[in-house]
Amino acid sequence: MAGTNRAIDAVTGGPVIILVDPQMGENIGATARAMYNFGLVELRIVRPRDGWPNARAIANASGALEVIDRAQIFDCVPDAIGDLHHVFAATARPRDMVKEVVTPRGAAQHIRQYEAASLRSGVLLGGERAGLSNDDLVRAKTIITIPTNPSFASLNLAQAALLLAYEWFLLRDETPDSVVTDSETRPANGHEMDGLFVHLESELRASGFLYPPEKRPTMTRNIRNMLHRANLTEQDVRTLRGMIASLAQGRNDKSPA
Amino acid sequence: MAGTNRAIDAVTGGPVIILVDPQMGENIGATARAMYNFGLVELRIVRPRDGWPNARAIANASGALEVIDRAQIFDCVPDAIGDLHHVFAATARPRDMVKEVVTPRGAAQHIRQYEAASLRSGVLLGGERAGLSNDDLVRAKTIITIPTNPSFASLNLAQAALLLAYEWFLLRDETPDSVVTDSETRPANGHEMDGLFVHLESELRASGFLYPPEKRPTMTRNIRNMLHRANLTEQDVRTLRGMIASLAQGRNDKSPA
Repeated sequence: MAGTNRAIDAVTGGPVIILVDPQMGENIGATARAMYNFGLVELRIVRPRDGWPNARAIANASGALEVIDRAQIFDCVPDAIGDLHHVFAATARPRDMVKEVVTPRGAAQHIRQYEAASLRSGVLLGGERAGLSNDDLVRAKTIITIPTNPSFASLNLAQAALLLAYEWFLLRDETPDSVVTDSETRPANGHEMDGLFVHLESELRASGFLYPPEKRPTMTRNIRNMLHRANLTEQDVRTLRGMIASLAQGRNDKSPA
Repeated sequence: MAGTNRAIDAVTGGPVIILVDPQMGENIGATARAMYNFGLVELRIVRPRDGWPNARAIANASGALEVIDRAQIFDCVPDAIGDLHHVFAATARPRDMVKEVVTPRGAAQHIRQYEAASLRSGVLLGGERAGLSNDDLVRAKTIITIPTNPSFASLNLAQAALLLAYEWFLLRDETPDSVVTDSETRPANGHEMDGLFVHLESELRASGFLYPPEKRPTMTRNIRNMLHRANLTEQDVRTLRGMIASLAQGRNDKSPA
């Protein structure tokens, strides 16, 4: 039943995804893939139309067999959620129930808090044809509604699972929102930038570019700002100085003559 | 060409999604669906393997014909991005390039700021077989890397498009804290950057800088990445081209003699 525990151990512990009356094996497989892309491994399936195991689910899981192999099958929703402390239901915002409604991001925050208290969460997702019944919704403490384009609001199972898993994963992930890749080299320091500016401006002056003289301060300031914005590495500075020397070579060759 | 403008008008203006060498129509259709679920309508396709229009794309779009009908086909990436001011490339973090890397959330923040300044963005997504080439990456100012389960990192086109569109959509109501450009000028677009690169590389080759020839691709790639990082304005491009012409003038004056 349980697959081998590979590196995924580091990201287990997330919410259980519970598919209720799913029809197409392709959608179950795509859901498993989406879950595993973001480190969720526990899939439960209530009354899969085409039985289990399902070859199309396996094919569409694209290798997420960790999830497929662990999947558990249930006859009814109460059994599938019996061990869970907090059950969410993903659906459009219900009009006739008084319930907390959260976004996927809000749900992820709740789920992380429950995890910190060693409490288990699960999310009910309804099948292709009928979605979740009112009885299913009543069993959930909280509704998850994914905000979408009002002209085209319908998400399939795998899309909904992807967004839920993604938001859950991001709350553990520590990748900063923005970073500049560093390879071998380091950012240029002030001396190196100064050396570049002096070299460039000297060649530009010699070539007649920094003209007329009264505009020179503004022109050099703009050039320096432009180069500073590039966050040059020390390798970049060497490359640029090589380029400047190479471009200016014709004139320098000529001038002593 | 253009579909009827329904309620979607309220959420247009988002980034262009550019698929490069996509193979399966199913994936193109699923990408269109994911885009439209979160209000993106502009799809461009570079060299679709199976031609265009594609019946499988239409079937898998699940009704997102607003996107399918507007899709534009291109022979090469430069043409597909020529009118865009900021190009992102979605890929795993590159090891050998110095470039800003952002998450989908970070990218969405950038894109919303550009929109506030009436600037157009696009995201390159590579095909199923080979992903994006180094040449494609060089054309992008910024890399988008989606954080995933390291044991199962590969996302398909539609999954990547879904997460990018979702993050963009969630920011729809936010007024950006700051705007990128000042009032005087605007960021250089793809055509202007290409013109700069061609001019610079032609002069560098003539001066003997891009030597030996087998190193030329790496050298030009590094130079292009460095200049992209500077977020050049169209005024900067004109200044740089003036500098290049001025520096190279000595050799050019001499050579005809």
